[in-house]
Amino acid sequence: MTAIPYASALIIGAGPGISASLARQLGRAGLTVALAARNTEKLAPLAEETGAVPFPADAADPASVEALFSAVEARLGAPEVVVYNASARAPGPLAELDPEAVRKAIEITAFGAFLAVRQAARRMVPRGHGAILLTGATASVKGFAGSAAFAMGKFALRGLAQSAARELGPKGIHVAHVVVDGGVRSERRPESPGKPDSLLDPDAIAATYLDLLRQPRSAWSLEAELRPWTETF
Amino acid sequence: MTAIPYASALIIGAGPGISASLARQLGRAGLTVALAARNTEKLAPLAEETGAVPFPADAADPASVEALFSAVEARLGAPEVVVYNASARAPGPLAELDPEAVRKAIEITAFGAFLAVRQAARRMVPRGHGAILLTGATASVKGFAGSAAFAMGKFALRGLAQSAARELGPKGIHVAHVVVDGGVRSERRPESPGKPDSLLDPDAIAATYLDLLRQPRSAWSLEAELRPWTETF
Amino acid sequence: MTAIPYASALIIGAGPGISASLARQLGRAGLTVALAARNTEKLAPLAEETGAVPFPADAADPASVEALFSAVEARLGAPEVVVYNASARAPGPLAELDPEAVRKAIEITAFGAFLAVRQAARRMVPRGHGAILLTGATASVKGFAGSAAFAMGKFALRGLAQSAARELGPKGIHVAHVVVDGGVRSERRPESPGKPDSLLDPDAIAATYLDLLRQPRSAWSLEAELRPWTETF
Amino acid sequence: MTAIPYASALIIGAGPGISASLARQLGRAGLTVALAARNTEKLAPLAEETGAVPFPADAADPASVEALFSAVEARLGAPEVVVYNASARAPGPLAELDPEAVRKAIEITAFGAFLAVRQAARRMVPRGHGAILLTGATASVKGFAGSAAFAMGKFALRGLAQSAARELGPKGIHVAHVVVDGGVRSERRPESPGKPDSLLDPDAIAATYLDLLRQPRSAWSLEAELRPWTETF
Repeated sequence: MTAIPYASALIIGAGPGISASLARQLGRAGLTVALAARNTEKLAPLAEETGAVPFPADAADPASVEALFSAVEARLGAPEVVVYNASARAPGPLAELDPEAVRKAIEITAFGAFLAVRQAARRMVPRGHGAILLTGATASVKGFAGSAAFAMGKFALRGLAQSAARELGPKGIHVAHVVVDGGVRSERRPESPGKPDSLLDPDAIAATYLDLLRQPRSAWSLEAELRPWTETF
Repeated sequence: MTAIPYASALIIGAGPGISASLARQLGRAGLTVALAARNTEKLAPLAEETGAVPFPADAADPASVEALFSAVEARLGAPEVVVYNASARAPGPLAELDPEAVRKAIEITAFGAFLAVRQAARRMVPRGHGAILLTGATASVKGFAGSAAFAMGKFALRGLAQSAARELGPKGIHVAHVVVDGGVRSERRPESPGKPDSLLDPDAIAATYLDLLRQPRSAWSLEAELRPWTETF
Repeated sequence: MTAIPYASALIIGAGPGISASLARQLGRAGLTVALAARNTEKLAPLAEETGAVPFPADAADPASVEALFSAVEARLGAPEVVVYNASARAPGPLAELDPEAVRKAIEITAFGAFLAVRQAARRMVPRGHGAILLTGATASVKGFAGSAAFAMGKFALRGLAQSAARELGPKGIHVAHVVVDGGVRSERRPESPGKPDSLLDPDAIAATYLDLLRQPRSAWSLEAELRPWTETF
Repeated sequence: MTAIPYASALIIGAGPGISASLARQLGRAGLTVALAARNTEKLAPLAEETGAVPFPADAADPASVEALFSAVEARLGAPEVVVYNASARAPGPLAELDPEAVRKAIEITAFGAFLAVRQAARRMVPRGHGAILLTGATASVKGFAGSAAFAMGKFALRGLAQSAARELGPKGIHVAHVVVDGGVRSERRPESPGKPDSLLDPDAIAATYLDLLRQPRSAWSLEAELRPWTETF
């Protein structure tokens, strides 16, 4: 199996779930891993377990994201892989949604990803090397009733992924967008007895991120979609 | 030919081009038309020509959009058709984009549309009647290099359109999204001699908006796409 | 309202439903209408009602389609509008499907459309004028379990529509594909009491076909999709 | 890295390129590999190199495909992985295409895949285990001018993939469709000097097929798309 051709990774929007699985698998693959979240205290157990280094950041704030990349670069070198995994929702009927909650959901889900891609591009383009992975959802490709804010953020993220891939691909940077098309297993959302593997296992999702990182540049995927075998879609 | 089953329309992001053609055609079809733009002085000639009533508004500001709908309602009644036609770009390579310009582009292109849909929903849902038309672009379905901000805004707008259609359709409100997939003819961008009809005629675009408004509820389109006969796509 | 810039139409796969509505509306718009079906006896009432002229044809047979176009041309002139509305299904689990039934379903749904487009192109390209309308279904964009043959046929038809539009559009021929995304009201499938307009009215579908025919070449749609206001999608 | 949970594979449409790379990589991963092609003589070198077993078959003929699966089953056991990699084109302007060439292109590209899926389903469904991989192309998602037959076949194949995934996924069978979105490197089409990795390396494509086979059922991809880093898309 091909080794991952990157030495370091920064995961933004770190928490339990996909990010934790990614931190473990990237660490096992030999990458130095930085984790960014608003609340780094919550990252302590994962950092201790994996050796990943936590950094505080407000993913939707331009100055905070700039400071994050500088701090990561100073301590661990410029990240060769950047994963954006933060998102926020503002569910409810359109007439009742709070504009500020919608604005914030779009900013965390999509604008923050743009800020990360921008900082990543600044460091990766001169090297002609790097990978950017963006985490999408069913809402990236289908806007559901009662979920306008999340659809807006996730659609915007997909637009960013396409634009970034077309700009940065020919500069040697692999941009990929993963549509997580189903519920993800977690402590709060455990598997239903009698329905094995009907929620996405975060370790399985992370394995596909690593598959993407191993792809040689003659055959890159821009988009992967993942769902449980039992999913109705 | 079926008559348009609506009595009034509000066009947000009014200016020359599609909005002006719409104002004329909706006026000829017998609708009362309100035009909203940041700068109402520029609307004066169109208002005079068509009898449409101009209103000032900042499309991306929640309070301004709320005030706009109240003002239109007070003067002309609640609009039965709402068209959102505002957008902004922030072109350039990802590494060089100004975050505030990107934020603003997303807010004008997509967040403002959400604000309009929200106000429209508040007035249309109780009546079980109304139509919302959102203007997309090629960037709604394809993110181009050097155009991340516009792609994010237009993708987000499409996510909003889908979510709104699924929520509001069963409440009797027709939501449609028009992908304008090509350059639009204008004073600044006139037809090239020898290439007839190779830019979208704003009158032809507006005609499709009116077609959508005439569709009976048993056969609604959520999305229409339009491009010139000569367009490479 | 713009007049339809075509003088004659040929509807292949004529029967009750969309084709009958189209025959009536095209006739009222002043077009000469030819109707083709395997069994022309069934077309007699519609022909009598509308003045449309029935022709026998096996839509999936190259020689029969060639003879059809020649016969129509000899009697009514070369059709300026060609509508392909034939389709066939072969439902069932994959393991149990009869290969010959699947082959036939694909041939009637898609190969026959190719034969019609080919004959149409031969006559329309020299004139630089004409329109070709192809009738799709939900299965054109989503392959459902138990419906592989229909998905194959309808996906293939959409591929044909795109290819034909890109080839023939710049030659002045408007190709459009209509995704009929829901059940169509018919004698056998009447409206459910208490669920008004929850099946597509064939007259409403036909109205959108006529809208497409009226589009000037600076703003053509390649694809329209139609569904009832109550449809879950 | 997870092992591939399948013991045997049948590759239909075997030849140089993707199929040869797959045969090598599946063989190295420990699977028994059967190769099917119309002309088995051409498979001899690959068979000798990899230990794969060649079988003659006409991929678009129902009886031949049935005989193929029986022969493979008798000799090597029922294949747990089936790859369909055959396709045919019939390029040219619509008006000039030969109907029989178009029919044949659709049959080899799509109908043959249906025959393979049907035979695979018969063997895999009772075991609740297996994988089916279908090879798509750019033409699977975009119909180009001058390429109607290939677009029809590849669109149809994608419809089959979706329908099969929705039917067979919940029965434990992983169906995946790979959109090979670019030119594939081969002896006849070698890399251009000065444009490294601008053609898809068949080994890189095959690696993604193996990634798909390793996915656990809680996180299956239905579709993967691959293109070179330099590809304009």
